[in-house]
Amino acid sequence: MLIVPEREIANLMTPEAAFEAVEKVFAAMASKDAYNFPVVREAIGHEDALYGFKGGFDQAGLTLGLKAGGYWPHNLEKRGEINHQSTVFLFDPDTGKAKAMVGGNLLTALRTAAASSVSIKHLARKDVKVLGMIGAGHQATFQLGAALETRAYEKVIGWNYHPDMLSNIEKVAADAGVPFEAVDLPGMKDADVIISITSAFTPSLMADHVSPGTHIACMGTDTKGKQEVEAALLSRATVFTDEVAQSVSIGEAQHAVAAGLIKESDVYQIGAVINGTHAGRASDDEITVFDGTGVGLQDLAVAASVVNLAVEKGVAIEVDF
Amino acid sequence: MLIVPEREIANLMTPEAAFEAVEKVFAAMASKDAYNFPVVREAIGHEDALYGFKGGFDQAGLTLGLKAGGYWPHNLEKRGEINHQSTVFLFDPDTGKAKAMVGGNLLTALRTAAASSVSIKHLARKDVKVLGMIGAGHQATFQLGAALETRAYEKVIGWNYHPDMLSNIEKVAADAGVPFEAVDLPGMKDADVIISITSAFTPSLMADHVSPGTHIACMGTDTKGKQEVEAALLSRATVFTDEVAQSVSIGEAQHAVAAGLIKESDVYQIGAVINGTHAGRASDDEITVFDGTGVGLQDLAVAASVVNLAVEKGVAIEVDF
Repeated sequence: MLIVPEREIANLMTPEAAFEAVEKVFAAMASKDAYNFPVVREAIGHEDALYGFKGGFDQAGLTLGLKAGGYWPHNLEKRGEINHQSTVFLFDPDTGKAKAMVGGNLLTALRTAAASSVSIKHLARKDVKVLGMIGAGHQATFQLGAALETRAYEKVIGWNYHPDMLSNIEKVAADAGVPFEAVDLPGMKDADVIISITSAFTPSLMADHVSPGTHIACMGTDTKGKQEVEAALLSRATVFTDEVAQSVSIGEAQHAVAAGLIKESDVYQIGAVINGTHAGRASDDEITVFDGTGVGLQDLAVAASVVNLAVEKGVAIEVDF
Repeated sequence: MLIVPEREIANLMTPEAAFEAVEKVFAAMASKDAYNFPVVREAIGHEDALYGFKGGFDQAGLTLGLKAGGYWPHNLEKRGEINHQSTVFLFDPDTGKAKAMVGGNLLTALRTAAASSVSIKHLARKDVKVLGMIGAGHQATFQLGAALETRAYEKVIGWNYHPDMLSNIEKVAADAGVPFEAVDLPGMKDADVIISITSAFTPSLMADHVSPGTHIACMGTDTKGKQEVEAALLSRATVFTDEVAQSVSIGEAQHAVAAGLIKESDVYQIGAVINGTHAGRASDDEITVFDGTGVGLQDLAVAASVVNLAVEKGVAIEVDF
């Protein structure tokens, strides 16, 4: 039984390794070699916490297990600990025995960032120049960092509800040597790729703020009621997602489906594009949307990857369990 | 973060400690201080395995977490490992951080045995003399061992579909200095308490095999379709359970409810008897049934108990996680 503590993850896991793990498992989901279990998510009535389990099995990668944890909203103010807390547990699919325990906090940020980058690789036009960011919180820095590694952008433009937070993402752009500019929402018309990563319950990005040919990764909506972009934008776009069932129920597509603007059958798995069973972008004028809802298999994939890296570098703690 | 490996459990956990933990959490469930989460149970399509998670939160005991694992039917023949494999993970309910990992195999056997003993303590007549056993497999030895510690029986009688296995439970009775006798099913009329622990899909114990005043603990039925006793027996009895929702859907009561012999409202929580909000047995002639379906909170309760024992005895492995 191997243990990779949270403090080791930053030294081990790279955006590239996360990208590779997430791309592979999205492909396995689309070819039905991997599937996610029903999600358990409970308001436990203590510390206002949300706690639960996201499990799955990847028969192609032989990865079985779950991420357990959740959101403790008072951690930071009360204890100086981060509010999102999670741990990944991997099991041996041949025997059912516990195989590895891995700190899940940084991994969750990296796998979420990897998902939007995978969508950009497979759905954005080849000639993208301007990357737009909606949102400038902690997770936005991961999304931007990963996105800047996958394409050569000439400029990053950003909008946030609280403009003073834009310095968070400006710094990431600067570190990558890419100029940054704060814009208003209509200014997003200059973007070729837009990543939206907020926890909003009302849309910021409207259909009129988006130019033809843009790829938009909506990464913030993972709960009933949350919404980042106008529902009409999805009816003008071709919509892809990690997991269709989640997309239409708790993802960004929930609103367009509820309004009758699109149907569940209008939402495609990104894995099908990776596998080549869906052609992906049809033209340079098409708007594509990736509805990244977040699935347990992403967590298991990056955890399995980091366990291998920890073993290679000799930092995995071995416990005779 | 503390780790208690499977190999340490036998040296740490006693039937008494398991009894106390299970009795307390059943009481907490009935007073709504503790609740179980929805169960995830998946046929993963690999090694014919069933895998899943049983989680819960006990606000009274501040125990949060899950048991993960399942049933790998080829473990024994292929690898000499036991087929049921599980691990319990406990979390700090104040922060969401992983707190302990505990081997769950022996604990599962002990908590299941404790449940029937708790039901006997609270539902059987005071003057019981003969204990009947239906089933003689591995788990039956645990049920019998725990039952023999809670009351002074004059005799154990036993029946099993394969009579040659009765020696398993005869040995447990002999170790406790109690005479054992193999009987046919109608011979169960001599029993004051009956524990049924099989994995049958057709009933063995019929209503006519049971005398007035008997307490019956049905411990084997945890899945749709399984059945240990005739449905009519439940309509003649007062029925108690660990968790009503499970009892009427996957427990022994599923058949009596489906046949319209009893209603969901006829099934009472054993915890209410422990708490004194249900009077329990009404007369010495009444037949009582305990439908033990098995809940995640039992696993968490015994795991929390064994972690404390492991810390006291200095055998918990501490990992800086």
